[in-house]
Amino acid sequence: MSGGTGIAHNPAMDWLEQVKWDAQGLVPVIAQEQGSKDVLMMAWMNREALQQTVALGRAVYFSRSRQALWAKGEVSGHVQTVHELRLDCDQDVILLTVTQQGHTPPIACHTGRHSCFYQRLENEQWLSVEPVLKDPQQIYTS
Amino acid sequence: MSGGTGIAHNPAMDWLEQVKWDAQGLVPVIAQEQGSKDVLMMAWMNREALQQTVALGRAVYFSRSRQALWAKGEVSGHVQTVHELRLDCDQDVILLTVTQQGHTPPIACHTGRHSCFYQRLENEQWLSVEPVLKDPQQIYTS
Repeated sequence: MSGGTGIAHNPAMDWLEQVKWDAQGLVPVIAQEQGSKDVLMMAWMNREALQQTVALGRAVYFSRSRQALWAKGEVSGHVQTVHELRLDCDQDVILLTVTQQGHTPPIACHTGRHSCFYQRLENEQWLSVEPVLKDPQQIYTS
Repeated sequence: MSGGTGIAHNPAMDWLEQVKWDAQGLVPVIAQEQGSKDVLMMAWMNREALQQTVALGRAVYFSRSRQALWAKGEVSGHVQTVHELRLDCDQDVILLTVTQQGHTPPIACHTGRHSCFYQRLENEQWLSVEPVLKDPQQIYTS
């Protein structure tokens, strides 16, 4: 469980090694809104992202497209305060309980919607069924 | 968006091709309980699993360890009735709204717990904080 890649053994870091990182060193992370219990998004973390998330109490993901840490809200202001972290039975998925900051009503999605899960399957079509709360151009140029 | 691997073009199947399948032909799927809105589990689907899920109205996943379709509840009886399917903004994560069948209170986890997310991070330790509702040996030998 401990050891790892070139890092001296530090028992305090065992919780990080107990996560089953995939071949890319990543783990899927679900963000669920405190209160509403809405599932807002799913993204990925590497060890450093998870460590920063815990240290800061704010969600820090790992962007697979940019191959870099992604402090959620760094541009949009739509920061996620993290209240709780859960690990699943196979140790390979993390669930965050968060408060989505920066806009009322809260916006987690880069499209300006509350949740990233805004497309519903109806009669073999994925239909957008949730409103845009703020124009993404306004989110990312301010 | 259409086409695919050796399958003749069928417009009715476009919804399947609109999902961004990963290099292994899989997509992560979150199951959220209707009513409680608890996040029960995350698993994976391939095209066939997603197609069967929609056709049957019951969750069918793809087991990465067994490399085979996994009709949730086929052994345990803990079937998931699917009420709604959602796709996220990047088209690469699916969210199901389900009713977890077969036991009261409902059990989604193979450990006999309600949800797979029963380990909470506290002081740099993952602690089991949810009760086992039924002995797994009883779940899988009956």
